[in-house]
Amino acid sequence: MANVAKAIHTEEPASDLPSRQARLAYRAGNDEQTAGVAPGFVQGNLAILPEKQAAAFHRFCQLNPKPCPIIGMSDVGDPRIPALGLDLDIRTDVPRYRVWRDGEVIDEPTDVMAHWRDDLIAFVIGCSFSFEEALLADDIPIRHIETGVRVPMYRTNIVCSAAGPFAGPMVVSMRPLKPADAIRAVQITSRFPSVHGAPVHLGLPQSIGIADLAKPDYGDAVPVHPDEIPVFWACGVTPQAVIAAAKVPFAITHAPGLMLVTDLKNKQLAVL
Amino acid sequence: MANVAKAIHTEEPASDLPSRQARLAYRAGNDEQTAGVAPGFVQGNLAILPEKQAAAFHRFCQLNPKPCPIIGMSDVGDPRIPALGLDLDIRTDVPRYRVWRDGEVIDEPTDVMAHWRDDLIAFVIGCSFSFEEALLADDIPIRHIETGVRVPMYRTNIVCSAAGPFAGPMVVSMRPLKPADAIRAVQITSRFPSVHGAPVHLGLPQSIGIADLAKPDYGDAVPVHPDEIPVFWACGVTPQAVIAAAKVPFAITHAPGLMLVTDLKNKQLAVL
Repeated sequence: MANVAKAIHTEEPASDLPSRQARLAYRAGNDEQTAGVAPGFVQGNLAILPEKQAAAFHRFCQLNPKPCPIIGMSDVGDPRIPALGLDLDIRTDVPRYRVWRDGEVIDEPTDVMAHWRDDLIAFVIGCSFSFEEALLADDIPIRHIETGVRVPMYRTNIVCSAAGPFAGPMVVSMRPLKPADAIRAVQITSRFPSVHGAPVHLGLPQSIGIADLAKPDYGDAVPVHPDEIPVFWACGVTPQAVIAAAKVPFAITHAPGLMLVTDLKNKQLAVL
Repeated sequence: MANVAKAIHTEEPASDLPSRQARLAYRAGNDEQTAGVAPGFVQGNLAILPEKQAAAFHRFCQLNPKPCPIIGMSDVGDPRIPALGLDLDIRTDVPRYRVWRDGEVIDEPTDVMAHWRDDLIAFVIGCSFSFEEALLADDIPIRHIETGVRVPMYRTNIVCSAAGPFAGPMVVSMRPLKPADAIRAVQITSRFPSVHGAPVHLGLPQSIGIADLAKPDYGDAVPVHPDEIPVFWACGVTPQAVIAAAKVPFAITHAPGLMLVTDLKNKQLAVL
């Protein structure tokens, strides 16, 4: 056993994991965008709530697994989530945070040591970066990556199942694809239910309450070519929008585009 | 072993299989449509060719597995295909046949005893009935079944890979679906590669050379509602169209809608 452990350690010691290196840099104050950082490793959306609201939020995630797939969760007051990184500290390892009071952002610090409390519970929610990696690996082009902008996101008329104060519309991200690629993308992303899974819609944006693809509610617009259809996935912005709308007394999230980098590998999330 | 065999026999004797009962009726001269016959059992498209052309046709199927998934094949001159039914006789068990000479139908008999030759090889090719059953089981409505017509089919600009004299466009069948059902239908039919598998296209008929959905090349038109997109699957009419176009000296196929009913169960075709 010692030899096996040593062999694994020699091959890829935890300290050399690019995901851990990234977290250490963020912990030290780096606040660069996480897109493209530590390729192959899972990144997550962050939501931290007091125990009093956390149970309802947990139920909200349970009821709405497509926009809110939980990939990790802390114990009450515990800043560690060892399943996502042995030395991960949720108070310091995200590049930049948003601290919310009554639905308003009151601070955007690079750590939340000053805001941490013994009653907080952290939720880490899957992110589309993981399935985008699988799409790119299959040579399916992703427009917003090609054009170097943020993915376009839209509020829809799809109503999430409510839990306590948490309620609201599903937010979706959109990627234009040729029809054959859209079919392949359904197959590929179906293998990754913990990072939003299969699309929730394709082809008819008006059917889900999107009037104009050129005017996303979040992110940046991208062109949709005549031989492409828009394909929509449930988006991890949904829980953040729901937390804002609920105007809970206190919450912490990641700042947009500045995710938690974990030691999980994207490949590990595939169910088949 | 004897006891086991007896137990199986007692539970479901081969003579009581609804598929075998159907074949016996067809063998006796019945020539009713096979749609809805022996629910749960696989039906197949039939193509019989002389050994001289069979190898090239077999290569054509190999190169074009989506329109031409082979689910059974006879030996040279042998009218049996035990894997599809222990007592199946390919010369008599299809309700009605088409006999082709030089690309023209010269006879439409209810058996081909008079046309059988020692050099013939029979190919049985998967059919959409199998995946339609899986869609219906998942409460996905199928328009042509609801409206009691034949599925609309179209010649496309998708070029099949040629083999010997066998070449031509892929023929597709079309089912209008709401986008969420279309996504689910991709997932469900992906499990059934031997009966055409996942769709080949959706949303943009003109991209695959279909100018007007209201004018199918085979079958009947069905309405596509404003909240639906057309979803296209590779179709088993493709090999029949290719055989006709190749103007081979001699061939036998089933007559449209009058398929071979086998003892395989649709469920057995699922790969996952």
